[in-house]
Amino acid sequence: MNSRIQDFGVQVGELPKGERNKISDVSGVTVGHYTIDTAEHKTGVTVVMPAQDNIFQSKMTAACFVLNGFGKTTGLMQIEELGTLETPIALTNTLNVGLVHDAMVEYMIQRCSAEHIEVRSINPIVCECNDATLNKIQDRAVKAEHVCFAIEDAKADFQEGDVGAGKGMICHSLKGGIGSASRVITLDGKAYTIGVLVLSNHGRLHDLIIDHRELGKQLEHKIHDASPDKGSIISILATDLPVNDRQLRRIIKRTSVGLARLGSFIGHGSGEVMIGFSTANRFDKDDSRAILPVLTLNEEYIDFAFRAAAEAEEEAVLNSMAAAEEVTGYSGIKKFALGDLLPDVFNAKKVEK
Amino acid sequence: MNSRIQDFGVQVGELPKGERNKISDVSGVTVGHYTIDTAEHKTGVTVVMPAQDNIFQSKMTAACFVLNGFGKTTGLMQIEELGTLETPIALTNTLNVGLVHDAMVEYMIQRCSAEHIEVRSINPIVCECNDATLNKIQDRAVKAEHVCFAIEDAKADFQEGDVGAGKGMICHSLKGGIGSASRVITLDGKAYTIGVLVLSNHGRLHDLIIDHRELGKQLEHKIHDASPDKGSIISILATDLPVNDRQLRRIIKRTSVGLARLGSFIGHGSGEVMIGFSTANRFDKDDSRAILPVLTLNEEYIDFAFRAAAEAEEEAVLNSMAAAEEVTGYSGIKKFALGDLLPDVFNAKKVEK
Amino acid sequence: MNSRIQDFGVQVGELPKGERNKISDVSGVTVGHYTIDTAEHKTGVTVVMPAQDNIFQSKMTAACFVLNGFGKTTGLMQIEELGTLETPIALTNTLNVGLVHDAMVEYMIQRCSAEHIEVRSINPIVCECNDATLNKIQDRAVKAEHVCFAIEDAKADFQEGDVGAGKGMICHSLKGGIGSASRVITLDGKAYTIGVLVLSNHGRLHDLIIDHRELGKQLEHKIHDASPDKGSIISILATDLPVNDRQLRRIIKRTSVGLARLGSFIGHGSGEVMIGFSTANRFDKDDSRAILPVLTLNEEYIDFAFRAAAEAEEEAVLNSMAAAEEVTGYSGIKKFALGDLLPDVFNAKKVEK
Amino acid sequence: MNSRIQDFGVQVGELPKGERNKISDVSGVTVGHYTIDTAEHKTGVTVVMPAQDNIFQSKMTAACFVLNGFGKTTGLMQIEELGTLETPIALTNTLNVGLVHDAMVEYMIQRCSAEHIEVRSINPIVCECNDATLNKIQDRAVKAEHVCFAIEDAKADFQEGDVGAGKGMICHSLKGGIGSASRVITLDGKAYTIGVLVLSNHGRLHDLIIDHRELGKQLEHKIHDASPDKGSIISILATDLPVNDRQLRRIIKRTSVGLARLGSFIGHGSGEVMIGFSTANRFDKDDSRAILPVLTLNEEYIDFAFRAAAEAEEEAVLNSMAAAEEVTGYSGIKKFALGDLLPDVFNAKKVEK
Repeated sequence: MNSRIQDFGVQVGELPKGERNKISDVSGVTVGHYTIDTAEHKTGVTVVMPAQDNIFQSKMTAACFVLNGFGKTTGLMQIEELGTLETPIALTNTLNVGLVHDAMVEYMIQRCSAEHIEVRSINPIVCECNDATLNKIQDRAVKAEHVCFAIEDAKADFQEGDVGAGKGMICHSLKGGIGSASRVITLDGKAYTIGVLVLSNHGRLHDLIIDHRELGKQLEHKIHDASPDKGSIISILATDLPVNDRQLRRIIKRTSVGLARLGSFIGHGSGEVMIGFSTANRFDKDDSRAILPVLTLNEEYIDFAFRAAAEAEEEAVLNSMAAAEEVTGYSGIKKFALGDLLPDVFNAKKVEK
Repeated sequence: MNSRIQDFGVQVGELPKGERNKISDVSGVTVGHYTIDTAEHKTGVTVVMPAQDNIFQSKMTAACFVLNGFGKTTGLMQIEELGTLETPIALTNTLNVGLVHDAMVEYMIQRCSAEHIEVRSINPIVCECNDATLNKIQDRAVKAEHVCFAIEDAKADFQEGDVGAGKGMICHSLKGGIGSASRVITLDGKAYTIGVLVLSNHGRLHDLIIDHRELGKQLEHKIHDASPDKGSIISILATDLPVNDRQLRRIIKRTSVGLARLGSFIGHGSGEVMIGFSTANRFDKDDSRAILPVLTLNEEYIDFAFRAAAEAEEEAVLNSMAAAEEVTGYSGIKKFALGDLLPDVFNAKKVEK
Repeated sequence: MNSRIQDFGVQVGELPKGERNKISDVSGVTVGHYTIDTAEHKTGVTVVMPAQDNIFQSKMTAACFVLNGFGKTTGLMQIEELGTLETPIALTNTLNVGLVHDAMVEYMIQRCSAEHIEVRSINPIVCECNDATLNKIQDRAVKAEHVCFAIEDAKADFQEGDVGAGKGMICHSLKGGIGSASRVITLDGKAYTIGVLVLSNHGRLHDLIIDHRELGKQLEHKIHDASPDKGSIISILATDLPVNDRQLRRIIKRTSVGLARLGSFIGHGSGEVMIGFSTANRFDKDDSRAILPVLTLNEEYIDFAFRAAAEAEEEAVLNSMAAAEEVTGYSGIKKFALGDLLPDVFNAKKVEK
Repeated sequence: MNSRIQDFGVQVGELPKGERNKISDVSGVTVGHYTIDTAEHKTGVTVVMPAQDNIFQSKMTAACFVLNGFGKTTGLMQIEELGTLETPIALTNTLNVGLVHDAMVEYMIQRCSAEHIEVRSINPIVCECNDATLNKIQDRAVKAEHVCFAIEDAKADFQEGDVGAGKGMICHSLKGGIGSASRVITLDGKAYTIGVLVLSNHGRLHDLIIDHRELGKQLEHKIHDASPDKGSIISILATDLPVNDRQLRRIIKRTSVGLARLGSFIGHGSGEVMIGFSTANRFDKDDSRAILPVLTLNEEYIDFAFRAAAEAEEEAVLNSMAAAEEVTGYSGIKKFALGDLLPDVFNAKKVEK
């Protein structure tokens, strides 16, 4: 498996982590990748599967929050209106959003057809960041079958770093991509998990702060990269905590804290989009009862979830960087790997596993 | 009791009405007024009591929707965030919002103190329309004790028309004010009520449509009133249907349909503010359980509630006009009563009760 | 040219109409269609071109408003954030949104490449309604080239009714589709145009009101169609009035009034999405000035625009129905044309042109 | 004058500061306080005057953003709708919001009357934090005349710390209150100022981070204060940069970054409300022109303003703490002053001025 930020002795926050310290610590959640890695193309698709069964049939509570809407994510309008998620969540590059949307519709039609579920309308969630610095994005290298491959690849022990949609992403001018982390909170004696997965592609090197150290300023002298913040970060939060969509929106907003802690100031060009889902209450579309019993969080306890979201976000972004390897883009631009630079500036060696 | 639009043979919509055809058909809801009616001052306070017990202790699900935010309603920010209501809802004139807010805080402190409930923070909902055409508004005639009088006056069989906060209001250039209506929907064999109360102070005479007839254009020739639309309409919706705050926001949005049917086009100066609450799930602030069981509407059935909201709103506005009597303002401006004009233009006599 | 509602003697509103009474009365705006009309497929693509030059280079002020977000429209997040439009607006069926999005990206890349404009990021606006009742939607009959055909077809004198994306749409259980109308307002001696184009696919027959007559109830007895409201309506508003994005959002909200007047109560399944753009201020992406001079509407005059938006929307929806011809869907379901029914129920003949 | 965080050698950010490093570096902006400091009452009023002339007559562009709406701020609905500010902004304790609102209305009526400006409607902005830990809040000690005193006290060289509305506030479990800072950005050779004023009353001691040091954890061992985060923070941003309300909303959102940097994770009970205004374009209410020329920022340059907002916010909060002196509340609870603790934990002496 890839390196993670804790391998470098960096501890984020105080709450206990889930078993894998990944979004897949939320039961049922898996993640798959398809990576395109050629001389010209550094891009791909990543898919977050919220459950193993068909969530179009049995929908999940969902929420979204847009801190900076300079981006092309699809499907948020319906999440806002209905508070539910009905498809997996796909991530890709900016100019392949439409194609991945189309492939997700095809996937859902096929899957529902096989399960004898009628489909007239589908709301795929497709998120993106812009990998045009390393990837020849105008070629739109992602193809429909890549989405299927990513779905088939989905597992709990998924890879992080420069994989899937993260292949060509850049975070604080270093190599970014896919990262994940999780936290566990205990309420009334029961453990609940909050997991985050990010596609990181935001921030300036100069601003990077790790473990309260202004690492970016140190690295600047070393690698001389003064690129502006033109990226975006997508944050997907999963939980098994029973929350309604309003509570979930409040929780995912707190991922912004994790970003600010690392030095981001939410740049104009850096779309910041948060999407959350809860596996706790499911809504079967054929349920004929007019009134449904659901469980909901007593809001007096929501601070635990807020803290967990902030911590998991911060660590997920760091993991996306710690896991990524150095990548040279189609035009010769090279983005360094945090993992290669950290031992030097931190006076700390990577812990051998 | 005052006249109502059905007394003139006007039938709004198709759904069955509640027993009183008022917001108070939702069990526990009462309404009280204090009316100021002097040569200079035509104004007052109206209070909607969502329950007979203390909702600061045991909060209710609430939602709001602002179609046109040219207005001064207080308390919406917290309703948006927390989805709950914790005080009665007060209505008054624009320049007395602060005073009524202050009086509501005092009332809640006194009441909670008497019931041994600790209060550090209170979020009073105070809505307003501008009665400056008939009322010498700069004198700010409402006083703190008037709020208490209105609360004490609260009852299920409350008055409509030019009473309470409605005393100086003008609707489609005729006398407006307080109006109410309700609808009953049946789901899984159980009856649920949706009740609306409005403070009507919007619209131009020219645009008024009643029962699909362009009544405004007829009346224009008669009473020569071409005042612009500078008012506002406040709509309060109560229901015993178990809904979460998102569902409730969707329901109250549909009151806008009732307004458009009557000829409003949501003028720039006409703030349109909708607030809703559901009495179905209560949230005790001392409940120590982390996870709470609640009931929620299966959204596939929400169209019934949408239709009920639209119909009740349309009839509530008409009732505010049908109930109001002719009023002459401080500067000599007279606003006619719809009830005096209807028999003539409608070729229909008011039905004797 | 197709029939229009005024041909049946129905007059909507009071404001003067533009020359064509279409969205293309706003200078530079054109509309193109590609229609698929086979035994199985009744669908297509419609494209609104906001200008003849490249708006990716020189962006337009834009705004959106979602009254009911049960739908899949793409691109709204960025419009909300940046207040600008940078591509044409495409309309299609629900399950082809991704494909049309992808084709729009390709079109923009090609066009910009030809004009030597660098493109890394594009935000296509793709709107949809669900034509699954008449069109075998799961086959996803729209192809990438159809989008190009629609763009090439763009002209000021475009067709309305069952064309383009409107081919399979149903409005108040009659045949709906594409409709348009415009209004002219005069400010400081200068004429400004507000044009609307709709893709109508919403409403129940029972509720239909035309010219203040409950036509739906009459027609119900004739054609026995009690389908529920499961559709959506997309409203595109164009204007040459100089407004900022906030003012534009306020204006497009008023299209909801036109819908309510026709009997809609914004059904759960009926997504209502409004998008507006103004051609008055253009923002060149290569403008190096830090501070830009722009023109903006004095908000005291905005009521004229509100009224124009409401009137144009109401007439555009009626035009979509008046223009449409009877269509029989893939499963044998037939949707009647308003134009065929109107003469009978209205006791009014269509005016011969 | 009071101590400021830079006196302790703490440098926040990199942008140049305004002359006073206060919100009053924006020309025309002044701030006044009235402080109540008795055994039982630690509270008051602070007023931000956006201009020396009457902004009811000549309105300013304004925007707001609510990151956490658990609070009672009034007036935001109209700012959202109209994008303008028409009164000074007042800050006070939670239970005096109504009274201060009422006093602001009275002040505006008197002032406008003296200046022969007709007033029918006023939208006062009243913000609050909850000082119930140190102040016997239920007594509601603020009176109408205190608002007038605060307005009269307004000046550019205003006091920070435990003054005015800040008297009883607590920030990260230390004494908080009023703080301010400013940054200067240069565009096209012209300098523009972004100033922030906060009323700080949020955060846990444990979480406090200053200058990348986990100071809170150090201080915890010293002063043993594990109070939860039940406060709120109000942030007022002023600028002379010509921006529209959408751009301004984007700018004020970035103040959240400053909060996160200090260790806040936006607790449930900590309302976070941001309000901004720009002095650059003024809108005279009697301007009869239909179309107005305005200046607006080229959004490609907005990152400078984002960074300035984040930096100024962080320093303003630190200044609120650095300036405050130790306060013992009505019940004997004592809140320490950061300025007294810093020299010890920082191994750094306060710089003598």
